[in-house]
Amino acid sequence: MDFDFNITIVGLGLIGGSYAMALKNLRPKNIWAVDIDQEAIDTAQQLGIIDKGYIDPKIPLKNSDIIILCVYPNKMIQFIKENKNYFKKGAILTDTAGIKEKVIKEIEAVLPEDIDFIGGHPMAGREYKGIGFASEDIFKGASYILTPTQRNKAENIVCIEELIKKIGCKNIMKITPKKHDEIVSYTSQLPHIIATSLVNGAKKEDTINFIGGSFKDATRVAHMNTSLWTELLIENKNHILDKIIVFEKEIKKIKEALIEKNQNSLEGLFESAKQKREELI
Amino acid sequence: MDFDFNITIVGLGLIGGSYAMALKNLRPKNIWAVDIDQEAIDTAQQLGIIDKGYIDPKIPLKNSDIIILCVYPNKMIQFIKENKNYFKKGAILTDTAGIKEKVIKEIEAVLPEDIDFIGGHPMAGREYKGIGFASEDIFKGASYILTPTQRNKAENIVCIEELIKKIGCKNIMKITPKKHDEIVSYTSQLPHIIATSLVNGAKKEDTINFIGGSFKDATRVAHMNTSLWTELLIENKNHILDKIIVFEKEIKKIKEALIEKNQNSLEGLFESAKQKREELI
Repeated sequence: MDFDFNITIVGLGLIGGSYAMALKNLRPKNIWAVDIDQEAIDTAQQLGIIDKGYIDPKIPLKNSDIIILCVYPNKMIQFIKENKNYFKKGAILTDTAGIKEKVIKEIEAVLPEDIDFIGGHPMAGREYKGIGFASEDIFKGASYILTPTQRNKAENIVCIEELIKKIGCKNIMKITPKKHDEIVSYTSQLPHIIATSLVNGAKKEDTINFIGGSFKDATRVAHMNTSLWTELLIENKNHILDKIIVFEKEIKKIKEALIEKNQNSLEGLFESAKQKREELI
Repeated sequence: MDFDFNITIVGLGLIGGSYAMALKNLRPKNIWAVDIDQEAIDTAQQLGIIDKGYIDPKIPLKNSDIIILCVYPNKMIQFIKENKNYFKKGAILTDTAGIKEKVIKEIEAVLPEDIDFIGGHPMAGREYKGIGFASEDIFKGASYILTPTQRNKAENIVCIEELIKKIGCKNIMKITPKKHDEIVSYTSQLPHIIATSLVNGAKKEDTINFIGGSFKDATRVAHMNTSLWTELLIENKNHILDKIIVFEKEIKKIKEALIEKNQNSLEGLFESAKQKREELI
């Protein structure tokens, strides 16, 4: 199948690097990268996962059919504002950021009419950051959320969907940017808050030799890219604060069952969670 | 090395079955089992992991040097009360229950003077129940908590420690029953409460296609033996209610940082959790 595009990746971190690896296998016409860090560019060139990397984005942007933005949300908005006049006519932009509504609103407000931005969020990642941990495998079988808007051209959405399928993702879901932000606040951002709180509340001397699988698993994502997650959570704070309340209400039900020593109520809560988890996962 | 004991396992569930498998490899003089379920006894006999199983405990108890109790805490207390006069003089009892203070208090109050009960808690298990999921591997490298009391003979504690090492456990920790109950309320019981609450609070239609690794890991233990955990939590409710408050205070810190959009505070909480988790695990 034809994959006759010039592609530029903006940001050679974990996700950008992984994207470059996965796309290089598809043999596009050219794959370029932009990064402010010459070392990341050198690494990517040495790995052979990009044809050429640039500090100055103007050169690759003017010839790129597809641009994949893999930088923090606010940096991405800034990048597009600064470079909006250098994109090739008809270019398709997509991103990988974990928040969508604000990002898309700000980008659509400044983007020239003939440039399309289609929001994307791979449900993939690792607890480490940087190109050194990049792997094309992170996309294999992963779910991928797209948040197209009325402004997007149908054929461009299809093009990005094809690209996502080719790098190995399954279950491509299309929802609104707002719905995206609401959903991930529960399924992804809240678990990070829980992991952090569970670790921070632990008395070190009481915990260190007594950790079982349940604590280990519940706190795995406390090892996160802290600056990225700080930005994601603050930008999505309204949804998150709502979802924390939902979670706290469930904790309260268990507390009440414990205080009342209400065995039926407690076992009912456990049974419903057990069954629901089997349905969900 | 000599392992010249008659051993009886009481309760052929996941833990009892796994114990029988692990001990059979050590070639004790005899390994017997007691269960109220003839089917579990038949299974264990067919697997060759016990020499003989009994519904009536009197026969194996009178010849057993070591008795390993692998039933729910309240059933165990009842079992010991009913059978306290059938134990062999000098027999050593140990258990595997996830709560200790109440259990040991009630058992020591009724036990004949020449019988020793040494509380034990393997930090091992699986999210499934029953002998069908038993495996000697659950003990390999697992931590094991012992909660000896002033009543226990030193040589008996050593004997149980040896047995635990032989089945593959590492890190044998000796703490008081009370300290045990306090610690596991945070490191094990609270993660189960969190997993349950996170699943129960999820909107099914919003969650089903949008689950990433963080939600999956944080909720793994929502698939639990619900009747056992109900009993464990209700018996340990005072410690658990205290620990829920500790956890809720940590959640509150994150909430406040979000409300104030306080990037430094939020990133500080994430950084401290990230570092602390590396130290803990």
